[in-house]
Amino acid sequence: MRRLKPPGVSGTSPIVAVIGGSAPAPEEAAAAEAVGRALAEAGAILICGGRGGVMEAACRGAKAAGGLTIGILPGTRRSEANPYVDIPILTGIGEARNAIITRTAQAVIAIGGSYGTLSEISFALAFGVPVVGLRTWEMRREGHPPASIVYAATPEEAVARALGLVSKPR
Amino acid sequence: MRRLKPPGVSGTSPIVAVIGGSAPAPEEAAAAEAVGRALAEAGAILICGGRGGVMEAACRGAKAAGGLTIGILPGTRRSEANPYVDIPILTGIGEARNAIITRTAQAVIAIGGSYGTLSEISFALAFGVPVVGLRTWEMRREGHPPASIVYAATPEEAVARALGLVSKPR
Amino acid sequence: MRRLKPPGVSGTSPIVAVIGGSAPAPEEAAAAEAVGRALAEAGAILICGGRGGVMEAACRGAKAAGGLTIGILPGTRRSEANPYVDIPILTGIGEARNAIITRTAQAVIAIGGSYGTLSEISFALAFGVPVVGLRTWEMRREGHPPASIVYAATPEEAVARALGLVSKPR
Amino acid sequence: MRRLKPPGVSGTSPIVAVIGGSAPAPEEAAAAEAVGRALAEAGAILICGGRGGVMEAACRGAKAAGGLTIGILPGTRRSEANPYVDIPILTGIGEARNAIITRTAQAVIAIGGSYGTLSEISFALAFGVPVVGLRTWEMRREGHPPASIVYAATPEEAVARALGLVSKPR
Repeated sequence: MRRLKPPGVSGTSPIVAVIGGSAPAPEEAAAAEAVGRALAEAGAILICGGRGGVMEAACRGAKAAGGLTIGILPGTRRSEANPYVDIPILTGIGEARNAIITRTAQAVIAIGGSYGTLSEISFALAFGVPVVGLRTWEMRREGHPPASIVYAATPEEAVARALGLVSKPR
Repeated sequence: MRRLKPPGVSGTSPIVAVIGGSAPAPEEAAAAEAVGRALAEAGAILICGGRGGVMEAACRGAKAAGGLTIGILPGTRRSEANPYVDIPILTGIGEARNAIITRTAQAVIAIGGSYGTLSEISFALAFGVPVVGLRTWEMRREGHPPASIVYAATPEEAVARALGLVSKPR
Repeated sequence: MRRLKPPGVSGTSPIVAVIGGSAPAPEEAAAAEAVGRALAEAGAILICGGRGGVMEAACRGAKAAGGLTIGILPGTRRSEANPYVDIPILTGIGEARNAIITRTAQAVIAIGGSYGTLSEISFALAFGVPVVGLRTWEMRREGHPPASIVYAATPEEAVARALGLVSKPR
Repeated sequence: MRRLKPPGVSGTSPIVAVIGGSAPAPEEAAAAEAVGRALAEAGAILICGGRGGVMEAACRGAKAAGGLTIGILPGTRRSEANPYVDIPILTGIGEARNAIITRTAQAVIAIGGSYGTLSEISFALAFGVPVVGLRTWEMRREGHPPASIVYAATPEEAVARALGLVSKPR
């Protein structure tokens, strides 16, 4: 068995989540790939749900730039992971794993997405993890301030803003 | 130890969740209590997060009408439950328990609430469990149909609509 | 919809878990049914994993005596529950739900069982919940005192001992 | 922000768990450190519960040999992790995270340990993940074959056996 090269990963590398749906529009998938690439180029570790769609595109982008990718899978099989996940975490806890993705991340970038993505945005906001949105949900309650999401117009802006907001260790 | 009276609870009693924040406005708490009472009067079992605020008000209303209340607690101690919870389920899984509340319910009534409530609404929508909203979140994505929440104007309307939407056994 | 009769269930009814395998020997299933019946006769609420085998036998016994049964299911469908479960909790978190069963119980009765049951016994011991064993696992570590399980010879003894050990509210 | 060096980690690096207590005897801690070092030298990724005691000793050994360490933490704060964890996964699900550690690992090495460790051994056996034991629990049920744990006498033997048993991708 080959020896690991020193991985260049440590507690100081920021961990950033990319969240989004498994059936993205083509421009959402392209944005996710660009986000993944830019995160890896910036030295961040990518965490995601480990499946297809936005998750796979982001992992593919990160691997193209030599990054490290973690997939927090809902199920119990490594084969559920997309091929660009380096470290598949088999939670076996289904969608409740959305809380783990968002707690572990120091910032979250949401791209498109359906109700599962909305649950992840909600958890991140509940946990005080910064959320940057790209073509994604807007939420409001009458008589209350809007949900504290930072909206970005491009993948590059999303990554720059997310890295700028990386939460201090809790 | 005293013998249980036949509880009048069976697989045919609908289970309805009431979700909302732990620091509700007075009119939200009043609405939650009215919802809890109306659910119990209709023969439904109340499930909630088991804590204070909207959860406690709903449980108090349900108990006033002789209902059965289940609290899916985030932590590990029975003392976390509000005093109107009959059956405290100690999950110890934190906010990930929001997925359990919404999966178990056959319909969900959301009253006010902050980001935790938003995660519960999101999970219910993701799981295909009907959601009735009372003074709560609205969510939208540009170019997509609105989130499929049924908004009600009064507690009575919320309960009537929720019971009408109770999902078939899955 | 019919009105619930007052269920006679409250925070003062002890919650006792019955754990064991889904493919019990006939004498294990008979013991589980007797345990379920005796628990209900004593006014305890039965909690279990909600599936077949020991779980189903215990629920059947409890219902025969007019008790209340809670099934903490690993999956996401009510149809997974055995027909004697009154309140199916759909956790969707797989075997991690074993921690919820044992945390929620104030005492645990283990009957036979395989590795899943062993994980439940372990969790109960880790959480300080009393465990009564009937034809079940024995565990030891060299140089350490034996695991603190109380072994019973009959279903009646198991129930009497479990109820005597019901943990104080935490 | 500095660029990540290629981490030398991929889906082909085996992931091996080291489990054990937070208050080990000195010889258990020494064994854990030796196990961590040998795993890293063999190119394996170390996964553990991320806390102190056996977990910290194993991570320290792995880092001394340039390995990669993952800590599946029970709580919600990075500060819970021992200083040798590269990637802290903040599950927030308490001891239920024991199921995640053992599912994700392709083999498990158990060193000493108390009831929490016993729950991890049980889960690994339930999930079909090979378990190698070093000064740890023995479990048996009368009339049944013994639990399928491979016992090793030294850290080196434990690592060799674990790597030999690494489960095929599921």
